[in-house]
Amino acid sequence: MKLGDYRVKGKRARLGDWDTHDDGGLSKEEAQPLLAKLQEELADYQERLYAEGRQSLLVVLQARDAGGKDGTVKKVIGAFNPNGVRVSNFKVPTPEEKAHDFLWRIHAQAPRAGMVGVFNRSHYEDVLVPLVHGEMDEAAAEERLKDIRHFEALLGRSGTRIVKFYLHVSADEQKERLQARLDDPSKHWKFNPGDLAERARWDGYTGAYEACLGTSTDAAPWYVVPADRKWFRDLLVSRVLLHTLKDMDPQYPAVDFDPGAIVIE
Amino acid sequence: MKLGDYRVKGKRARLGDWDTHDDGGLSKEEAQPLLAKLQEELADYQERLYAEGRQSLLVVLQARDAGGKDGTVKKVIGAFNPNGVRVSNFKVPTPEEKAHDFLWRIHAQAPRAGMVGVFNRSHYEDVLVPLVHGEMDEAAAEERLKDIRHFEALLGRSGTRIVKFYLHVSADEQKERLQARLDDPSKHWKFNPGDLAERARWDGYTGAYEACLGTSTDAAPWYVVPADRKWFRDLLVSRVLLHTLKDMDPQYPAVDFDPGAIVIE
Repeated sequence: MKLGDYRVKGKRARLGDWDTHDDGGLSKEEAQPLLAKLQEELADYQERLYAEGRQSLLVVLQARDAGGKDGTVKKVIGAFNPNGVRVSNFKVPTPEEKAHDFLWRIHAQAPRAGMVGVFNRSHYEDVLVPLVHGEMDEAAAEERLKDIRHFEALLGRSGTRIVKFYLHVSADEQKERLQARLDDPSKHWKFNPGDLAERARWDGYTGAYEACLGTSTDAAPWYVVPADRKWFRDLLVSRVLLHTLKDMDPQYPAVDFDPGAIVIE
Repeated sequence: MKLGDYRVKGKRARLGDWDTHDDGGLSKEEAQPLLAKLQEELADYQERLYAEGRQSLLVVLQARDAGGKDGTVKKVIGAFNPNGVRVSNFKVPTPEEKAHDFLWRIHAQAPRAGMVGVFNRSHYEDVLVPLVHGEMDEAAAEERLKDIRHFEALLGRSGTRIVKFYLHVSADEQKERLQARLDDPSKHWKFNPGDLAERARWDGYTGAYEACLGTSTDAAPWYVVPADRKWFRDLLVSRVLLHTLKDMDPQYPAVDFDPGAIVIE
């Protein structure tokens, strides 16, 4: 499994180039101990990031309905110390939020130094939804994507590293997961009948996501994560996060006192 | 281990009435499987709380330095789904925060419906610190405590259940933990030389905490958690949280569609 194979390069990415059912040549049984080890390493790097208090990491999760965003938060982000994590769930904008530019509510949730911020849905919804619903033409969408590029560059220059994940599921897998929500009473609350109308716009979303993937840069790359297999999704996202944190190389800060000279009464 | 024994009743609680080294008659080995089972139950109740979306839980953590607040967040809160948790760390107030009343920044972090909010330090610091440092007399502290009672009652009537924990460590245990931070380079960043000045005010803090414990009510009880043994602290806090969530009794919401009648194309 080479991480670079899942990273979006250039502005003409096609989702069809990635196999939603990819398993990286591994079995679920082989993946389990690998994930456990990754989680330990991630927790160690997160502590360093928190201790250093100079950089931050912003994880953007996007997917179609039932694509696995919540599961990824639970399984991957769940391995981090909650003290240093803040998950932001962006829902349909409130009247107050709508009265501002689309990045206003997003900017307010940007992670402070030392923190890992997770956007469960994000500013990309403000391109995807209006584009697919025909409320915005491609030129207007391109303007928003330009705003996003500038915004992400600003964060990048200010110490925030951004990693963006598109969790890539097939139409068949989505159908199975939505059906599972209907079949299990304890999952009914997760089912939104409106999701079916969005499902019917499958190809429209494919095109809109491909437009979004064009914002992949070194400072804020997109990764397409084959997500039909949940265990592979968790493993790949964890690997990318560890790769990113290693590259950020957070250090325990130097202290301005001599630890050996201090006597505790 | 009876939870009621650790719950503060009345306005005259004395910390000396609880043994910091209490183990509830258990060994660490016996506690481990109990904690694991509690964590599963907590995760289940948290999902119900999130799904229901009507009530919220606010966990207040207070302790002396090295009392175990961060460890409790990591071990106990770490078992929750990060999607439904928000930890707020209250540090020394910024100039902007100081320009407002002391509850302004606190109120802004109150958990929304469906969420578990964790205050790692809290509004009680605004009584403890000025009281111990002689910047506020007892009458002024009593006024603030009255403000706090009103504020907590407001949250309580608005669907937020509050549980407040004082993590109770001995002076010897604090000394050991502070020394451990000096001895391990990867923990130096956690050591603040200023903590020694606070340690010297041990009895002052005892009295100030006892004043704070007077705000224990049915809707916002204080629990004194013997915390010299970390495993006992985690077990007791988890038990109290589960007890509280069971009492809140969150329910999966009814849906306004017929799951059996929906066909996914």
